[in-house]
Amino acid sequence: MNEFELITHYFTRPSRERQGIGDDCALIDIGGRTLALTTDMLVEQRHFFSDVDPQSLGHKALAVNLSDLAAAGAEPRCFLLGLALPAADSVWLEAFARGLFGLADRYQCELIGGDTTRTPTWREVPGPLTISITALGEVVGRALSRSGAWHGDDLWVSGSLGDAALALAIREGLAPADAPSLDACQTRLLWPTPRVELGVRLRGIASAAIDVSDGLLGDLGHILDRSRVGATVHWDRLPRSPALRGQPLPLQQRCVLAGGDDYELLFTAPPARRADVLAAGRETGVEVTQIGEITAAPGLTVLDEAGARVETPFSSFDHFEQSSHSR
Amino acid sequence: MNEFELITHYFTRPSRERQGIGDDCALIDIGGRTLALTTDMLVEQRHFFSDVDPQSLGHKALAVNLSDLAAAGAEPRCFLLGLALPAADSVWLEAFARGLFGLADRYQCELIGGDTTRTPTWREVPGPLTISITALGEVVGRALSRSGAWHGDDLWVSGSLGDAALALAIREGLAPADAPSLDACQTRLLWPTPRVELGVRLRGIASAAIDVSDGLLGDLGHILDRSRVGATVHWDRLPRSPALRGQPLPLQQRCVLAGGDDYELLFTAPPARRADVLAAGRETGVEVTQIGEITAAPGLTVLDEAGARVETPFSSFDHFEQSSHSR
Repeated sequence: MNEFELITHYFTRPSRERQGIGDDCALIDIGGRTLALTTDMLVEQRHFFSDVDPQSLGHKALAVNLSDLAAAGAEPRCFLLGLALPAADSVWLEAFARGLFGLADRYQCELIGGDTTRTPTWREVPGPLTISITALGEVVGRALSRSGAWHGDDLWVSGSLGDAALALAIREGLAPADAPSLDACQTRLLWPTPRVELGVRLRGIASAAIDVSDGLLGDLGHILDRSRVGATVHWDRLPRSPALRGQPLPLQQRCVLAGGDDYELLFTAPPARRADVLAAGRETGVEVTQIGEITAAPGLTVLDEAGARVETPFSSFDHFEQSSHSR
Repeated sequence: MNEFELITHYFTRPSRERQGIGDDCALIDIGGRTLALTTDMLVEQRHFFSDVDPQSLGHKALAVNLSDLAAAGAEPRCFLLGLALPAADSVWLEAFARGLFGLADRYQCELIGGDTTRTPTWREVPGPLTISITALGEVVGRALSRSGAWHGDDLWVSGSLGDAALALAIREGLAPADAPSLDACQTRLLWPTPRVELGVRLRGIASAAIDVSDGLLGDLGHILDRSRVGATVHWDRLPRSPALRGQPLPLQQRCVLAGGDDYELLFTAPPARRADVLAAGRETGVEVTQIGEITAAPGLTVLDEAGARVETPFSSFDHFEQSSHSR
């Protein structure tokens, strides 16, 4: 058991609600309606750098939650905000609120409650800024979940992968700091776009879905585990930006397969629904790419253009294993 | 504007939901039902000591949220848990989960989702353990809120006040560490009892309610502000434990009037409903005491036995003003 599994072990229990722990959203039924709920905690130096632009932080803190709602096919309704701050700085607060409400207003997702406190100071170091958002959405019809993939299904992903991880790699000095590509990648890292409209549109079409927050292979692994299937992924089909395609192959693979912070939707659908998937992408203005297939045999294989197996040392992002990976 | 008001300023906006920011719970209508939502963040060295018993911490983290639901008259339904941990320690996790689920099971309040992360380490000091819980409850009929108090109403409080603050005062060396009273007060501080059944029972009886988390006068101030009324409180009627009555008067006043961490219900009701209030207390096994009256004139007066004004330097607990008050 790794540390993450240890935590899961203590907090997972049989559920009487529609869907409990272990999916992107919990689902509860109330008054004949289905509510989707998700919570995400962002901690300074773990999920974001201390010098982050507060406006982008406000945006991202909500975006990662809306991305979870998107993976359930839920329409955002409202959210609650917990903030532990080292200090109440009006310039910081104004910018954070601007980023937060800029995204919230786009989806008429209202801030309905919250809690604010000051972080303690230890050895003259103020405690880390911590943001906890809980978002609620409504699902009309059947919610998307991680558990419906079926062998023979196509495997799809929205947008492109790996740019946010490339921005981190550049910052860490692992890739050359080429200005134009850095800007585009930084935007992907700091201002992720939750695929809300696409997620809603995929209800009734996709058989399973998850948002790519911890890296393609790790998040795909969650679909495979929950659906008790395997998958083949074709490396050459994986959508990558020109900036990323210009990098050495090992770095590309690390960023695309295990990078995280993409906030794209990874989903499966029967081959008979290909036209519907493409229409959903077209109508919501999001590119969708078929990147592989679901297999009956368990396991996850990445194949290159020649059909040879790509060796992947990458697994899921684990906050407790990768303790050096602060962001 | 103090720092707390500054924060409120940036995050308060017009609401289209039933009840937004500024009450113990937000209320949203869904499928003809009313859902109450609340979120609380507990930060190490701010809300609890680093050496706290993890079982009591698990209990208290949920209790403070259930207390908010109680103040809205909501029946607990489920909750989400955010945890930022310095390390994944199985002994700690097991005890925390035991305290958490011990209380959750009492109300069949299910943990439906969460997020866990590791706190960063700065200058070799692990970041503070941070717990963020969002609780959901259902309200049948009219929810209790802070804004319904009317002049002439009685002012009531459940249980007794000040014991948790006395436990802190003893720990800080401000009161003698007399063992028997310390035990009882410690229990009030570490294992607060949310007045869930009483809150539910007071729907349709109480005109306004709040839970006493930040101190009697500060929390009463919220009712008075929102209801645009004033109040008179009678010092000699304020329910105090024998341990607290044995302390010097100034310490008693500080603990009872401004102590915080009581998690009792403070509520108002018309004099015509006195028998109903007493019956609600009796049927739920909670003592209820009439401690004062709501007045048309604004302001808050505390009177002693002789009818003389008690001078009170105490206002609401403000995490940003009282930065030395770490717990």
